[in-house]
Amino acid sequence: MNEKKPATMADVAREAGVALGTVSKVVNGLPVGDVYRQKVEQAIRKLDYQVNTSAKALKSSHTNTVALIVPNTIAPFFALLTHHVNLALDKQNYKMLLCFTEFEHDREQEYIQLVRQNRVDGIIALTYSPQLDIPEGLPFVTIDRYFSASVPCVASDNFGGGRLAAQKLAELGCRHVACLRSGSSLVNEPSKRKDGFVSGCLDLGLEFEMCNLSDNAPLSAFEVFLKRNLLETDYPLDGLFCGTDLMAYQTVKMVRSLGKRVPEDVQIIGYDGMRMFGDKDYICSTIVQPVAEMAETAVKMVLSPDYRGLPQLICLPVRYQPGGTTREPVEETV
Amino acid sequence: MNEKKPATMADVAREAGVALGTVSKVVNGLPVGDVYRQKVEQAIRKLDYQVNTSAKALKSSHTNTVALIVPNTIAPFFALLTHHVNLALDKQNYKMLLCFTEFEHDREQEYIQLVRQNRVDGIIALTYSPQLDIPEGLPFVTIDRYFSASVPCVASDNFGGGRLAAQKLAELGCRHVACLRSGSSLVNEPSKRKDGFVSGCLDLGLEFEMCNLSDNAPLSAFEVFLKRNLLETDYPLDGLFCGTDLMAYQTVKMVRSLGKRVPEDVQIIGYDGMRMFGDKDYICSTIVQPVAEMAETAVKMVLSPDYRGLPQLICLPVRYQPGGTTREPVEETV
Repeated sequence: MNEKKPATMADVAREAGVALGTVSKVVNGLPVGDVYRQKVEQAIRKLDYQVNTSAKALKSSHTNTVALIVPNTIAPFFALLTHHVNLALDKQNYKMLLCFTEFEHDREQEYIQLVRQNRVDGIIALTYSPQLDIPEGLPFVTIDRYFSASVPCVASDNFGGGRLAAQKLAELGCRHVACLRSGSSLVNEPSKRKDGFVSGCLDLGLEFEMCNLSDNAPLSAFEVFLKRNLLETDYPLDGLFCGTDLMAYQTVKMVRSLGKRVPEDVQIIGYDGMRMFGDKDYICSTIVQPVAEMAETAVKMVLSPDYRGLPQLICLPVRYQPGGTTREPVEETV
Repeated sequence: MNEKKPATMADVAREAGVALGTVSKVVNGLPVGDVYRQKVEQAIRKLDYQVNTSAKALKSSHTNTVALIVPNTIAPFFALLTHHVNLALDKQNYKMLLCFTEFEHDREQEYIQLVRQNRVDGIIALTYSPQLDIPEGLPFVTIDRYFSASVPCVASDNFGGGRLAAQKLAELGCRHVACLRSGSSLVNEPSKRKDGFVSGCLDLGLEFEMCNLSDNAPLSAFEVFLKRNLLETDYPLDGLFCGTDLMAYQTVKMVRSLGKRVPEDVQIIGYDGMRMFGDKDYICSTIVQPVAEMAETAVKMVLSPDYRGLPQLICLPVRYQPGGTTREPVEETV
């Protein structure tokens, strides 16, 4: 036989001397070190590698539509995510079918049927069901929820964000801090915020407390914790890291109702980067999620011709933003 | 000919002694006085009137999908509207295709092609193009924008809301008030907020000023107005009505930066009913739009089997909500 067998992705990886996942990242336009990118690109040219689009071609009919599954668009984080996913899809000439779960697990599973009915070409989802059954080979990308190596997930760098919060509180002069968080006891991406915070405190030698309540815990449980650690102690807290901006907002009110000043007595950092009216003042000092980049990455992945070769978890970098609940000067926008 | 010709909607109107629009409202389940409803229902039974569904049946293929055209989901009002339209569609077993215009007029027009390509069964739109070309007979319902008698429009009672704001400021003890607004000089539904406010002030004998700037006016123009009417006068303003909650939020900051207290010196009422994190504290005292009812009405209309007989403009009732920028006690939620 004279006919040359077409090169596979594995051939490219072997030729370039890199992992299969690295080749996949380059092919799908995802971030990878320059040296690796050059190696892969050289190997692709040498072997005349062509991306295998058969997985896409097998689908009987394209709808140029992707479903986004989110709980709602009332919560500003979901509204912002919806916004950026829609813009990213539009750039690729795709339309968005918007599906709300209202946190009901059954509805999350139901929406997966949309792909099987050929009504959408893929799904991007921010879900809460721990038992979601995701068929193999389905173009399905999750935000903030890691299911398994076969379901690619995009998240902010939650662990790094928790560490950054600890570091900032230390820089701002805090000596005794706490992490306030509510959420599922299951390990998910957002739960790494607390782990990063603990890691940061330990590295810095910063004394810390933990108030880690279940999803359904009433706010009064946090009040009990704050009262004990702000008023009924010789060594009161002077810095707080809250799992979300919403919790930071509620915590500011609780701290003030206990007669303590924010940020003079207690500095508070949230997580998410939410702003008044979507794009005005930040609501609190916060770790900002790169929502636009997360959306663009998720769209790129769900539309990838090489869906099965995608990396399993991509964590995008966060940044710290002063927002009036810490002691830096804040630039006010009117 | 023995065969009886089927009764038309006009026959029903004649039989009942009511306007055609009243019959349409009853058929489409829209609000109408009980007396009229009974008359219409009697006539329908007597004439054995059947809703003509041919307009719907003519369509070659149903997609069970409706497009929502909005500028974005960053602004909380658009996010809330998107939320409720999606829930209302879901109740009818319809899916939502979400289309953003980012305030670009061309994109508004482009999206109308979706219906013609049979990709959606109808469109609900909140648009800004004054020259939008809407083909006759297209299931197209607008929110807050009245185009013509052939394009049904759903809005909050903007005029009534403006009157209510004047009335509340008077009840709260204001003696000299102003309306602050920016927006297109074209007549649209939201511009009636100022007209209602003027009407209310005139009826109550409440002295008022008007600061009505164009869409692109900088906030500094409002600051000049406020400075003149709060500081450089013997008879300063003590009550303000702002065209939106966003403007009220910005106005509170400007008034405070001029050394005046809110609500002690100046009481401020906005319009929209926006809340922190979508469902927590109201951001300011405000006229609340019935967004859920507006969404449900728009969905009912766009899916109506008798689309062409729909009323041209439906204004739904608003309510006043204290939110900390007026002098009532506010119930705080933590």
